[in-house]
Amino acid sequence: MPDRLRITYDLTLAPGEEPDAKARDIAREQTVELPPGGASAEVEARVVGTVETLTPADEGRWRAVIAYDAALVGTDLPQLLNLVFGNVSLKAGIRVTRLDLPPGLLARFPGPRLGIAGLRERCGIPRRPLLCAAAKPVGLSAPALADLCYRFARAGVDLVKDDHSLTDQDTAPFRERVERCRDAVARANRETGGHTLYFPNVTGPRATLDERLDVARADGCAGVLLNALPLGLDAIGAPAEWGLAVLAHPTFAGAFFGAHHGIAPDVLLGTIFRLAGSDGVIYPNVGGRFPDSVFSDDACVAINDALRAPLGGLRPAFPMPGGGIDADRVPHWIERYGPDTIFLVGSSLYAQPDLDAAARRLVESVRRNGS
Amino acid sequence: MPDRLRITYDLTLAPGEEPDAKARDIAREQTVELPPGGASAEVEARVVGTVETLTPADEGRWRAVIAYDAALVGTDLPQLLNLVFGNVSLKAGIRVTRLDLPPGLLARFPGPRLGIAGLRERCGIPRRPLLCAAAKPVGLSAPALADLCYRFARAGVDLVKDDHSLTDQDTAPFRERVERCRDAVARANRETGGHTLYFPNVTGPRATLDERLDVARADGCAGVLLNALPLGLDAIGAPAEWGLAVLAHPTFAGAFFGAHHGIAPDVLLGTIFRLAGSDGVIYPNVGGRFPDSVFSDDACVAINDALRAPLGGLRPAFPMPGGGIDADRVPHWIERYGPDTIFLVGSSLYAQPDLDAAARRLVESVRRNGS
Repeated sequence: MPDRLRITYDLTLAPGEEPDAKARDIAREQTVELPPGGASAEVEARVVGTVETLTPADEGRWRAVIAYDAALVGTDLPQLLNLVFGNVSLKAGIRVTRLDLPPGLLARFPGPRLGIAGLRERCGIPRRPLLCAAAKPVGLSAPALADLCYRFARAGVDLVKDDHSLTDQDTAPFRERVERCRDAVARANRETGGHTLYFPNVTGPRATLDERLDVARADGCAGVLLNALPLGLDAIGAPAEWGLAVLAHPTFAGAFFGAHHGIAPDVLLGTIFRLAGSDGVIYPNVGGRFPDSVFSDDACVAINDALRAPLGGLRPAFPMPGGGIDADRVPHWIERYGPDTIFLVGSSLYAQPDLDAAARRLVESVRRNGS
Repeated sequence: MPDRLRITYDLTLAPGEEPDAKARDIAREQTVELPPGGASAEVEARVVGTVETLTPADEGRWRAVIAYDAALVGTDLPQLLNLVFGNVSLKAGIRVTRLDLPPGLLARFPGPRLGIAGLRERCGIPRRPLLCAAAKPVGLSAPALADLCYRFARAGVDLVKDDHSLTDQDTAPFRERVERCRDAVARANRETGGHTLYFPNVTGPRATLDERLDVARADGCAGVLLNALPLGLDAIGAPAEWGLAVLAHPTFAGAFFGAHHGIAPDVLLGTIFRLAGSDGVIYPNVGGRFPDSVFSDDACVAINDALRAPLGGLRPAFPMPGGGIDADRVPHWIERYGPDTIFLVGSSLYAQPDLDAAARRLVESVRRNGS
């Protein structure tokens, strides 16, 4: 029996649809893409997915577990995406809620090269939760962004990243921005004896990715940020080739988070982003400015679990919840999510009248409550 | 006044949401990503999107046109995707229905390098619609796939492409498959005096793309197929660097086609896939096996228009409807979609008892009705 991967789909039926026909249709659409009889019996038996279980689920839905030959994927993340939710994305009422890869297939994906332990080592922080702030907004000059990086580093924030919308705009060209922000963080570190790391956003045209990674590496950055879906999920694996850690941003990914059609957030941002190599994954925290219908308390915990729970030989990755993180609430989130978390503080810091004092309060709160 | 791009969003309100607040929230979320007052007045005025119009639309929705400074995009397709539907993808009730780029911004994207006229020239067919068939399914050996290519080419099909699920599986490794299929098509062309072109699927891990394009070019292929969303939309532009035409497949894109949240098919598969450089774009034709709720007659015509209508200096691209295409119905589709169309015939051919005769009938029908 060859290795099989198993995909769990929650099915919402249209009027007249039958659950078993819908499940069998998925098993064909994702493989032979032909009506029954369109391929030889041998190919049908080997290639078409097998509906292993089909059971009623909440709210009139059905849950189908379909097993596929792992050989259909090879070592190929784009083809895994195609198998998981390729052509069926063009249908309706199909939501991927779980992905189980056999050990042989898991071993073919690199996963995080640093992971939680490796990123902790680069930060010099063995146990407590980490704090990350973003230099923003787009439209500021490189010196103005560098000044923000300096102030966050002075306050003792562990990681400072570029806003995900900063790419190579004329207001703050990539190379100038990276050099100035890196210098600003290094200066603050010298002054405080701290170890703040700066993560530039390397998102840009496909042809520039390697060049930007080379700049980040040559400038001594420990890691980078990238917009995973706009670049292509396989790009998550690229920074590791330069020895760089990688934080993956969820922009554009929300299209997949339909209530009845798409991929569950913990499968996409958790399992798949981790397989692709993310050392940290940003997501909208419950209670922030994104709808709780998608990012519920349960959904956030499920993302954390998918990033951290044992998964073959793959390293665990840091969840990076953003939204609703301030000095008063951070003890609650540390209690809820545990120490292996990077808390991303964004717009709430900028809403404070004294940015430096607010950053210091937050740093103190994380250090005090997370030790 | 700097160049502005305009994005039209259809808004579906949650209970308690106000249309003007929702539109203004989008304009901030996609730019400064900060609450009012979080950035300087100068940055606010220059960077935050401007809600130009807000009008009631069908079914209780509202339609907002928001203008953004084109300088936010630069020459950067991933950043364009981020601006169009990045963070707001993580919200709800927001659907992009139109994208208007100013001439200066349009000119920074290459668009199709061959387009309709260039692909016609490679096929040697100046006016009539083209016919494309797919060698499938995944799981067949390279010789078996090559035999299918041979038979389609013998029948006079204009383009033969790999199935989009064929990547580099052990059953038909990429290099062997491309060589055998190319040889098979060349042999058929010699025998018939025809000009059938073979388009291999170059989708695979990020690091293999250039190598596969090089193989396709060295093997004398006129163009390639790629799975645009799994690879990253910017990869659509890569084949042109090797002198290859590119057909873009919509797998994985269906996540964006929610009725109330996402990107309209004509904006994503039409405008954006064309900006990225597609010479032909495959989509599920109305009346095929994909739901008409998404791919309605109107939606298909809108995709065709977005690919073919004047758009700055960008070349028009071929729409490639697949589904419901057979010898009997092809006259209807030619009448409906016009000659600048590539009809993709997939599973319906394989359902015929005599594949060769069915392919010949289809070729004859296209030639007779399309001239």
